[in-house]
Amino acid sequence: MEAVVRYAAENHDRFLEELKDLIRIPSISSSTEHKDDVDRCAHFVKEIMLGIGLESAEVWQTDGHPIVYGECLGAPEKPTVLIYGHYDVQPVDPLDLWETPPFEPSIRNGRMYGRGSVDDKGQVHIHLKAVQSWLKGTGTLPINLKFLIEGEEEVGSKNLNAFLIDNQKMLAADVVLISDTSMLQKGVPSICCGLRGLAYFQIDLRGSKQDLHSGSFGGAVKNPIHALTEIVNQLKDEKGRIAIPGFYDDVVDLVPGDREALAQLPFDEEDYRKEIGAAKLYGEEGFSVLENLWCRPTLDVCGIWGGFTGEGSKTVIPAEAHAKVSIRLVSHQDPETVAALFEDYVSKIAPPEVEVSVQRMHGGLPFLADTSHPAFEASVRALKKGFDSDVVFIREGGSIPFVQTIDEVLNVPVVLVGFGLPDENAHAPNEWFDMENYEKGILSSIYLYDELSRI
Amino acid sequence: MEAVVRYAAENHDRFLEELKDLIRIPSISSSTEHKDDVDRCAHFVKEIMLGIGLESAEVWQTDGHPIVYGECLGAPEKPTVLIYGHYDVQPVDPLDLWETPPFEPSIRNGRMYGRGSVDDKGQVHIHLKAVQSWLKGTGTLPINLKFLIEGEEEVGSKNLNAFLIDNQKMLAADVVLISDTSMLQKGVPSICCGLRGLAYFQIDLRGSKQDLHSGSFGGAVKNPIHALTEIVNQLKDEKGRIAIPGFYDDVVDLVPGDREALAQLPFDEEDYRKEIGAAKLYGEEGFSVLENLWCRPTLDVCGIWGGFTGEGSKTVIPAEAHAKVSIRLVSHQDPETVAALFEDYVSKIAPPEVEVSVQRMHGGLPFLADTSHPAFEASVRALKKGFDSDVVFIREGGSIPFVQTIDEVLNVPVVLVGFGLPDENAHAPNEWFDMENYEKGILSSIYLYDELSRI
Repeated sequence: MEAVVRYAAENHDRFLEELKDLIRIPSISSSTEHKDDVDRCAHFVKEIMLGIGLESAEVWQTDGHPIVYGECLGAPEKPTVLIYGHYDVQPVDPLDLWETPPFEPSIRNGRMYGRGSVDDKGQVHIHLKAVQSWLKGTGTLPINLKFLIEGEEEVGSKNLNAFLIDNQKMLAADVVLISDTSMLQKGVPSICCGLRGLAYFQIDLRGSKQDLHSGSFGGAVKNPIHALTEIVNQLKDEKGRIAIPGFYDDVVDLVPGDREALAQLPFDEEDYRKEIGAAKLYGEEGFSVLENLWCRPTLDVCGIWGGFTGEGSKTVIPAEAHAKVSIRLVSHQDPETVAALFEDYVSKIAPPEVEVSVQRMHGGLPFLADTSHPAFEASVRALKKGFDSDVVFIREGGSIPFVQTIDEVLNVPVVLVGFGLPDENAHAPNEWFDMENYEKGILSSIYLYDELSRI
Repeated sequence: MEAVVRYAAENHDRFLEELKDLIRIPSISSSTEHKDDVDRCAHFVKEIMLGIGLESAEVWQTDGHPIVYGECLGAPEKPTVLIYGHYDVQPVDPLDLWETPPFEPSIRNGRMYGRGSVDDKGQVHIHLKAVQSWLKGTGTLPINLKFLIEGEEEVGSKNLNAFLIDNQKMLAADVVLISDTSMLQKGVPSICCGLRGLAYFQIDLRGSKQDLHSGSFGGAVKNPIHALTEIVNQLKDEKGRIAIPGFYDDVVDLVPGDREALAQLPFDEEDYRKEIGAAKLYGEEGFSVLENLWCRPTLDVCGIWGGFTGEGSKTVIPAEAHAKVSIRLVSHQDPETVAALFEDYVSKIAPPEVEVSVQRMHGGLPFLADTSHPAFEASVRALKKGFDSDVVFIREGGSIPFVQTIDEVLNVPVVLVGFGLPDENAHAPNEWFDMENYEKGILSSIYLYDELSRI
């Protein structure tokens, strides 16, 4: 173990440079324009896997972006750990708000800035480097290890389910380990036992054949922007509840035990508000901030556009208006069921003067872990050693659609050990990753493989 | 007169080529990027004025875009006619909807396509060529003539008022003639006796310091897009009335005589709906389409934007959301008064979780003509001859902010003789101008100068 930890410490600077190389590849999975970059990133990850000493690594083509699979099965009789992560990243606009270009990583004040630095390239890198430290430091791993690093997490892991089902034997494991979540806050190592699901839509409205002069036609036609704002306004009620009929039918209610555990976590709503820079927080009535973020579904328009949005004052009634809508789900909501409810409701409330259509963009299942499995206790011990601090159980408002799927298909515990921080701007300009957490993440992972060898 | 008409007929093809040259200059007044083009266009108009034989023409600098003034005062004892128009044009986006580039004019099916073809370069050109026909056909004009062609009509004629006041003596006239409106429909020559005013705003909202991940933060913050849709929804009530307190205080109500005259015009609401391509028409309850378009104020969001609007499905709660709002006013509403009411109301209804600010973009006064002046009868006679058809009095939903100002400053009748058509896509992609109306417009204007010589 000493040799492993020493290897990691001695190679720290080199690891950082290698992480930069990974971030430099603009692997934006939602953009057809970046298809080749996504592909290139997959092969780059495969090369890293071979370089750190895995027995094999391969790029698997799918109907979408490729999956990278690598393994090192040199520990007979020992448990097998499957590590899941993703090498694809979110889009980068608005580009002008980035202080340094998103794909030119740079370290400032102990933070690595760049798209994907924390979500999820940096966290995948932690495991690659922890494994490297074992293999280069001692020549062996205490467990059997499988890496499954996909390229479609940010677009709903469309092809992973089929891959998983087709390759169940290859992927079989005793525990699945995922680092794609955040710690509650700096200095508080956290295991995430719940994730929200996702149902994402685009609403498209058309009011007329083409754009109309707002003077010559204003007063005679329904402006599709107004129709859109009316629809958006009817998606939630005045208490912040989602107004789609039947939406809450499958929601698991919070029990008093959950609420007490959440209330005891070190979390200050006023600090949180200040950090966000909001004048006032806002959520569903009757729930605390953490309850709303982790245990309640929510709906947000992620984008809205229509008409003239440039400089100046063009007087136009646009022909079209559009919105992108994200709904976060909790157990046991199903994205397909919710999609059907959403489509029905939007069609019903759309004003008769406009044509409406709803596109289903992507969806993902929510997840809730059974933390009684010994892998969770093993993880608590490893994180406590790695961070020299007590470990908490948290949930996460975001979605990793694959988690519930692998839970169901492989039927093994899924442990979410996240090394990010909530304010690291994942999905926003100036994404960064705390380099102390990167370092402690590698150390914790080194311990974690050891701990998991004894479950 | 015969020589004048013959000159116009013989030079018809040349006139069209010259109009194309005018349209080719991208004189978009709202875009700082096109400042030089606007300037170039002013000088081009001046050169045309000198070329057609005016005694003098000059480009006058203002604090914004220049004004072109030219005159031909060779008819002592005769009335003086001031012709107003504008050489600036609207922006051209969405550019991809243009069948041919906006500044590469082309004639297809008797229509001249191009930005500014009808609004207002083509209509200014009608008068320039009618004057040319008089001066080249007979060597003289039957009236004293002044041209005032500005470059800021599409951005609220910001500097024209001061120019008018500073140069009252130079601009003094007996009648003002403006061709910047539409005919009721093809084959129905029309004089416009009312225009709506304009108050245009941009609403800017901010909810947080920066964009937030919709999973990690969704449920804890007020999304500024939702705040914006709530604000927009409260701008009008369920009857299509503007909900701003005090908004209707200065509105001149429709009297039974107005309503009867409008009802007798050849206008079919169902044809109108089909032409627009709307599933259903929509307007303020209790008013016909023409009443709503011409005699009632209205409010339209001309642009809305916030968050992710690209391809794919970025899961983000944006930091900001924005809307551009156009309010069309009727006599005797004042844009400044309305602006104050609008700002107060938006500040009041904005949710407390967001920061809101309102920018006043531009405004213009509404106009209502006194049609008892003999210039109106003279115009009816000229149009009847030029188009060989009965003439109607109409109003127009759009705004020409200058009209009410010149009416007040010069205190002479303003006659709006428009040669456009309502479906010529002014302010939209694929703007066009009917070439038959261009030709008949020149002919009518030739007669009109003659008719006006006897008022």
